[in-house]
Parts: sequence; C-alpha cells; structure tokens
Amino acid sequence: IKRKHSGSDLTIFSEMTALAIKNNAVNLSQGFPDFEIDGRLQSFLAEATHQNFNQYAPMPGNPLLIENLIQFNAKRNLPIALAPENITISPGASYGIFTALAAILQFGDEVIVWEPCYDSYVPSIEINGGIPVFLSLTDDFQIDFEALKNAINHRTKAIIVNSPHNPSGKILKKEDYDRLAELLEGSQIILISDEVYDVLTYDHGEFYSAFNHLKLKNQSLCIFSFGKMFHATGWKIGYVLASEELTAAYRRIHQYLGFSVNAPAQQALANFLEVFDVEENRKFLQKKRDFFLETFRDLPFTIRQKAEAGYFQILGFENISDLSDKDFAVWLTEIGKVASIPVSAFYQNANDTKSVRFCFAKKEETLLRAAEKLKDFF
Amino acid sequence: IKRKHSGSDLTIFSEMTALAIKNNAVNLSQGFPDFEIDGRLQSFLAEATHQNFNQYAPMPGNPLLIENLIQFNAKRNLPIALAPENITISPGASYGIFTALAAILQFGDEVIVWEPCYDSYVPSIEINGGIPVFLSLTDDFQIDFEALKNAINHRTKAIIVNSPHNPSGKILKKEDYDRLAELLEGSQIILISDEVYDVLTYDHGEFYSAFNHLKLKNQSLCIFSFGKMFHATGWKIGYVLASEELTAAYRRIHQYLGFSVNAPAQQALANFLEVFDVEENRKFLQKKRDFFLETFRDLPFTIRQKAEAGYFQILGFENISDLSDKDFAVWLTEIGKVASIPVSAFYQNANDTKSVRFCFAKKEETLLRAAEKLKDFF
Ligand SMILES: CSCCC(=O)C(=O)O
Ligand SMILES: CSCCC(=O)C(=O)O
Repeated sequence: IKRKHSGSDLTIFSEMTALAIKNNAVNLSQGFPDFEIDGRLQSFLAEATHQNFNQYAPMPGNPLLIENLIQFNAKRNLPIALAPENITISPGASYGIFTALAAILQFGDEVIVWEPCYDSYVPSIEINGGIPVFLSLTDDFQIDFEALKNAINHRTKAIIVNSPHNPSGKILKKEDYDRLAELLEGSQIILISDEVYDVLTYDHGEFYSAFNHLKLKNQSLCIFSFGKMFHATGWKIGYVLASEELTAAYRRIHQYLGFSVNAPAQQALANFLEVFDVEENRKFLQKKRDFFLETFRDLPFTIRQKAEAGYFQILGFENISDLSDKDFAVWLTEIGKVASIPVSAFYQNANDTKSVRFCFAKKEETLLRAAEKLKDFF
Repeated sequence: IKRKHSGSDLTIFSEMTALAIKNNAVNLSQGFPDFEIDGRLQSFLAEATHQNFNQYAPMPGNPLLIENLIQFNAKRNLPIALAPENITISPGASYGIFTALAAILQFGDEVIVWEPCYDSYVPSIEINGGIPVFLSLTDDFQIDFEALKNAINHRTKAIIVNSPHNPSGKILKKEDYDRLAELLEGSQIILISDEVYDVLTYDHGEFYSAFNHLKLKNQSLCIFSFGKMFHATGWKIGYVLASEELTAAYRRIHQYLGFSVNAPAQQALANFLEVFDVEENRKFLQKKRDFFLETFRDLPFTIRQKAEAGYFQILGFENISDLSDKDFAVWLTEIGKVASIPVSAFYQNANDTKSVRFCFAKKEETLLRAAEKLKDFF
C-alpha cells in the first residue's frame, strides 16, 4: 500500500496571495482580515508574556481558556453542557482536522467529503491512509442525502461536513443534522464537523453545532477556530469538541504531534473570551458583507447565493468571460488588480465552476478600492 | 494493515508534572525552565501584536525570521550556507519530527531509533505507518555502528538520531557523522536529526549539525527548537533544516497540517535572534548544571556521565533503593517531594534503568530547595 497525497505543491491560498503581492493587486483571495485585531486582545497577549505564561501549557490546553469556553458555550444556550474532557486546544483548525483523521483512520478506510470543500481535507485524509469518497453538494450547497445513503458502506469511517460552509457561506440546519443522525444511527461512522465560522452568521441565521445534537455528539469531532472568531488568523489556535472517548483518541495523537499550543496566546484568548461580544462581532462582519455586496452590485458578476455566514462571497463571471475560473482569477489579479480564489480549487477534479470567491473580511476602504478598480477595468 | 500506536494515554512528562503539583513537590521532571524569559523577548512579542503581526504568516515561516536564521547560522562559522528553501518554521519540534516522518514514510517502512530516546519518536513513526526498529546506544550513550550496519536493510527508510541527547546530554562528534555518512552513502535512507539542544553545549563541547556535514546534508531533516534555545518552551516554535528537495516534501505535509505558525511569536523571535548572545546563554545554563551537580553531590546518587549539553542530568539510585525506576520516581515525588523522570520511560520495553533524569534548567533557589528536601529525606 502506498500513501497518497493529491494535494498540490503550493495551496491555492498561498499561490493567489503571492500573485496579488507580485501584481500589487487588492487581495480578496486568502481568508484573512486586513483590519487590526481588537486592542484588548493585543494587550492581553502583552500581559500574558510579561506574566510569564511562556512555558508549556498543559497538553489539553490552558485551563482558564477551557473553563471560559465552557462558560461561553453555556451562555449561547446550547443544549449540551461541556466538560474539560470534551475540549482540546489545537494549533489551528487545519491541525484539528488532520489530527482528528489521524485519530480515527485505519489504512483503507473511506471518508466521505462534500465538494466544493476546503483544500486540506483530501490530502489530510490521504496522508493518514484514508480513501476520499467525493460527493457533490446540491446546486444551492445543500447535502444530498440520497447520494449520501448510497455512498455509505462498511468501509465508511467518517464523513466531513462544514457549516458554515467555505466557500459558499451556507449554514446547515437542525433538520440536516437530524437526517445525518438518522443515517449514522447504530453505525461506527464519525462525523468530522468543520465549524470554524460558527460565530459569524448573518441575518439572524441560526448556527447549529453537530456537538449540540443529542444523537450526534458521541460520534462527532467538531473543529473551531479562534483565528476566525477573533479575526486573528495568524495566531493559529483553534479547539476541538468531542465526546470524552473521542477526545481521548484525539489527544493520544495530539500529545506526540503538537503536544501543546502557544502559551502566551492561549492565556490572552482566555482573557479575551470573557469580554468578547458575539453579537457585536457578528454585526461588524455582516456590515462588511453588506458593504461588499453593495459596492460590487453594479459590476457584471452574478450572485447565486448571498453568503449566510463566514468571510466569503461567491460570484459568477459567466457574463464577463469565457475563461476557466482559474485563468479568470489569474487574469483578474494581473490585469484587473483584484485577487480572488477560483472555486474549482475546492473540487478535486478541477472542473471549471465559472465562479470565484471573494473575501469580504476587509476594511471598507479595501473593498471600495477593489470595486473601483474593477469598475475602471470592465 | 492496522495503524499502530504504542504510546501511552498520558506522556510521562504530563504524568510526572501532574504528580509533582498534586504532591507539592519540587518539579525537576518535565523539561521546562521556571525562570523568566529574557525581557526583550517579552517586549518583542508585545510589539509584534501591536504592529499587527496577527494574520497568517507565510506557510514556510516569517521571512525576517528565516533571514535572521540564515545570518545566525553564518555567524556560527558552520561550513554550509543556508537559503530560505532550506528552512521551515514549525509549531514546535515534536511537530517537526512527526511531519518529517509523515513526509517520507510509506506503510511498512522501517525506521531505526536509538534507545533511550524521546517518547514521541516511536508513536510518531507508527502513526505514520512505519515500523520502529530498536537499537541500543552503548553504555556511554554512543552509537553502536556495528549494530547499525546489521540493522539496515532494504526496508530501512530512516534513522532518527538525537544530539545533544535527551535524556543523557551526550553530544555526537564529527567522526560519528562521518561514520553515519559512510553507512548511508548511496542509499535512500533519510537521517532525522533531533538537535533541539544545539546551542546549549557545555565545557567548550563542540556541537555539530547533521546538516553541516557535506555528505549528509542532502539526506537529512534536522529539527531545532526556539523554545529550548530561548527558554520559552511554551511558545512551541521550532524549525526544520533540510535540502531543498526534502524541504519541499516536508512542506507538502506542513501546508495541510499546521499550514503556518503563530505570527506575533515568529516576529518576536526574529527580532530577538538579532540580539541573542549564544555564549552568554551557554554560560548561563552551564552554571545551572554545575550548581545542580554541586548541590546534589552529597546525596547518595551516582553519576555515570556528566551532561555535556541540554537541560538534564541522569543520576543512578542503585545505592538508595531496590525499587524500579518508575516506582522510585513516584516515591521520590510523593515522599521525598522532588519530581524526576524515570529513564525507563525513554525505552520501549520499560526495562528498569536504576536511574532517573533531573532537569537543571531551573532557578538556583529551586535546585537548592530540591537538594535540601532530599538531604532531609535520606
Ligand atoms: C490557511 S490559508 C486559507 C485561509 C482560508 O481559510 C481560506 O481562504 O479559505
Ligand atoms: C513536551 S513535554 C517534554 C519536555 C521535554 O523535552 C522533556 O522533558 O524531555
């Protein structure tokens, strides 16, 4: 048996950011904010290193951070109370997904992924000896339960779902989890649930975590991101929620891989969680999405779906160009001076999607500059 | 084929630190300093987050940090100049070792490890589908080249070496690398070289990196640790040196696993590297080793080898107790109120070594307190 690795040598995010820099283009490709993080978070970090939070944090995570996550979850009125045995802090969400897969996969196990999906899923499955099984989300980015039922067999070890969804911004509903629970009931199949945009839902869209579904929680590993939550993507810290049993399996890998996570940053996050206002944060980002849609409205792009959550808006360019989406994104960066991500990068078999993804988690002036450059261009 | 995992549910380091806390014992077990880190490093971290180094660093690492590592290496007069293509920043050294193995192993590949060795090697090999082959260092912690020659076969994919060595503090010499090079010449075998204590060598003991051996550098992945170098173990940042080709292989995994490393901390490390004084740091730690040996001299332990480098000193207890080393270490923590690590934890087949490892990277008052507690006790 050979270990496979269908990933590329440079992720599309690194590639497009490099191309944006080279061409002095407005970078709406890779998902990171260009505004400053909350000043209190900066101060808490300075404080933490001066208070000498500089030696190994405990392997599962800083105890105050774990305690404050329990409180934070309790305040959200989710039905399931967390215990420290359900939480492990991770050096980023990608690491959380990789390590969850390492914890559960045996060679040859199948893992169902939904396209379009984040580019790390498939290589992470393959590096860990698994076999990705590709299913397509429906045209409006919903789970196709009929296809799922047909794909599940005795080799199926896990299903990766992602809500709020990257790149589409779609949120799975309670009913979707009910149907997932129905399909998984009695099986050993694990749900790996990428929920990194959980606190960024718009228009009163309700977020629902797999871990809060009574029938799914014992079969789920849910991955979250402080980087996305607090707009500090470079801090590279997330957390993983799972049952005590799955958490133990996860930690058996984690303790020999990352072992523990940057100590001053964990302490800063713990303190910031006590003052963090989810509603304010949600409104702050929703305003950016609305501003983006407003300023881009007169451009010849088409909108299939308004983003319900997250950092991104997909726009169609079928009225603009016959290029493939990858070529279009490169052309738009080099000549139009605005960088985006071709949506085909979220598919294994790079089929041309005729759409590109823009990151709106940017200063209004940045979004305005991008729109103006494109207005001049078209 | 089943993926194996011979690791335990709680590393010996977490276990002994927890036991130390529970028993209010002086903790000389897990390898972390109890003194403050350099104030300039604290200030650089505060500065970095305020200067908004809070979004994704580039996947290979912060460019200034990489540039300054190149300068740092050049100042050390090592024969080989580094290029950015040889360096990848990692979220800790354990991650570096794991990811190096993930980058090179196919299922069933053999990896030679030398016992005693750090506890993450074997699980990291197994999680990545490899088969550990155990060889024993000689009584004075040297490589047994006869045994190595006999162990190498067509399934051998890698050899893990560790110099300066944990737990013994032994340094491999240029001649050892010459002999390794001779054995590996013409083969595809990769040397994974754990060099996390590189700057902490005492008594003018010369450190030599596998990457600086002209015949080994194209077959080596060398792992370093800023945490150990700057006594900030909780920052969890290290780096990996390798040829351009092996670096590319390493990054193909890294970009989907950790992707990038804590951005404010990387910027702080970059700045600190410009003012860091290796000689002063070396003397600072050597003084601690000497102080430890001095204060522990009248205790009934035996010394097989004085530590040449690193954070640790192994002491024999054969004149004190008939207990196994694990039981002795527990007893010494619970009743003697000083925590150590049983050296058998560095062996796969927990044979009783009649010795324990003490961490001397502590304040002098801590080392004194430990010695006094033990003087009262014996
Ligand atoms: C880790 S780089 C990719 C960031 C991201 O989440 C995205 O752009 O989708
Ligand atoms: C990651 S905890 C172990 C720390 C260490 O290097 C040691 O004690 O040997």
